[in-house]
Amino acid sequence: MVRRDEIRPGEVAVEPPAATDAGLVFIGRIRTPWTDRMDCPRQGRRDGPVCRIELFAPWDGGLDGLERYASIEVLYWLDRSRRDLLRQSPKSDGTSRGTFSLRSPVRPNPIGTSLVTLVGIAGGVVSVRGLDCLDGTPLIDLKPDRCGFTPLAPRQPGDDDVDTGRAGVPPA
Amino acid sequence: MVRRDEIRPGEVAVEPPAATDAGLVFIGRIRTPWTDRMDCPRQGRRDGPVCRIELFAPWDGGLDGLERYASIEVLYWLDRSRRDLLRQSPKSDGTSRGTFSLRSPVRPNPIGTSLVTLVGIAGGVVSVRGLDCLDGTPLIDLKPDRCGFTPLAPRQPGDDDVDTGRAGVPPA
Repeated sequence: MVRRDEIRPGEVAVEPPAATDAGLVFIGRIRTPWTDRMDCPRQGRRDGPVCRIELFAPWDGGLDGLERYASIEVLYWLDRSRRDLLRQSPKSDGTSRGTFSLRSPVRPNPIGTSLVTLVGIAGGVVSVRGLDCLDGTPLIDLKPDRCGFTPLAPRQPGDDDVDTGRAGVPPA
Repeated sequence: MVRRDEIRPGEVAVEPPAATDAGLVFIGRIRTPWTDRMDCPRQGRRDGPVCRIELFAPWDGGLDGLERYASIEVLYWLDRSRRDLLRQSPKSDGTSRGTFSLRSPVRPNPIGTSLVTLVGIAGGVVSVRGLDCLDGTPLIDLKPDRCGFTPLAPRQPGDDDVDTGRAGVPPA
């Protein structure tokens, strides 16, 4: 989040295809203490300030049960990010690396993911610690942290698929 | 992934708003051994079969540096999932819980996230273990696992924001 919109020495931009393969609906808004990209933490911390995740109707009706989990995964839309960089230079020093080797907000689909600590849920608002995004960031999903979640659905055949030395991948 | 498209007793559907707040571009395709939703694992396992993540051009040019990470976060689009359920019944037993308390593929923005083990990268293809999605699933992002990633960018003021007892959240 240290970038305005410049392209730095060593970075590579492409003319990206239109982003029309699927559509998102914003299901809420995230309230944090950070109102300028230059002030955001580079990564959230579990002892950071409490932030509020405000769900829009009707999605506030889907929170029941989330209070069982101490740790929650949050997906949000980094709506100020450019989407066209293939290589980036986080240090602005002329060296660059591929976008997919970074957790930079600049990526073809600017989705941020954070693991946060649940503080409380009340009235369609989920309070958490561990976020690093700008105040007003659109929310796209909440899920229990996979580490604390045991599937409730009945077992499936694929649950037992482990690597057995056979080719596990269908031919291209 | 155990659902065809039925609504089960105890579940609650809504008329969802149009999903037009933001657009995604599919940046690749995931090849797995599972060709039917009824066969997929409920969650990926790190000793599972090797799967191939095939990047489309020009995005295959953004992989440089990803080989440094043993563990990678994968985001994909669960393109067969309904998006309108607020409450779901994973056990089909008449009881239900809010969508956001489940890791079900059925959610307003059907994005799956997995942490996978890197096996290798060659020619725009990333081979990994730990996925649980259908063969052909569209790819939307790859990132280093946050646990193994140290930000390269210069420090930001927010990096030091910890909870100090002050109100950490701006007024609504």
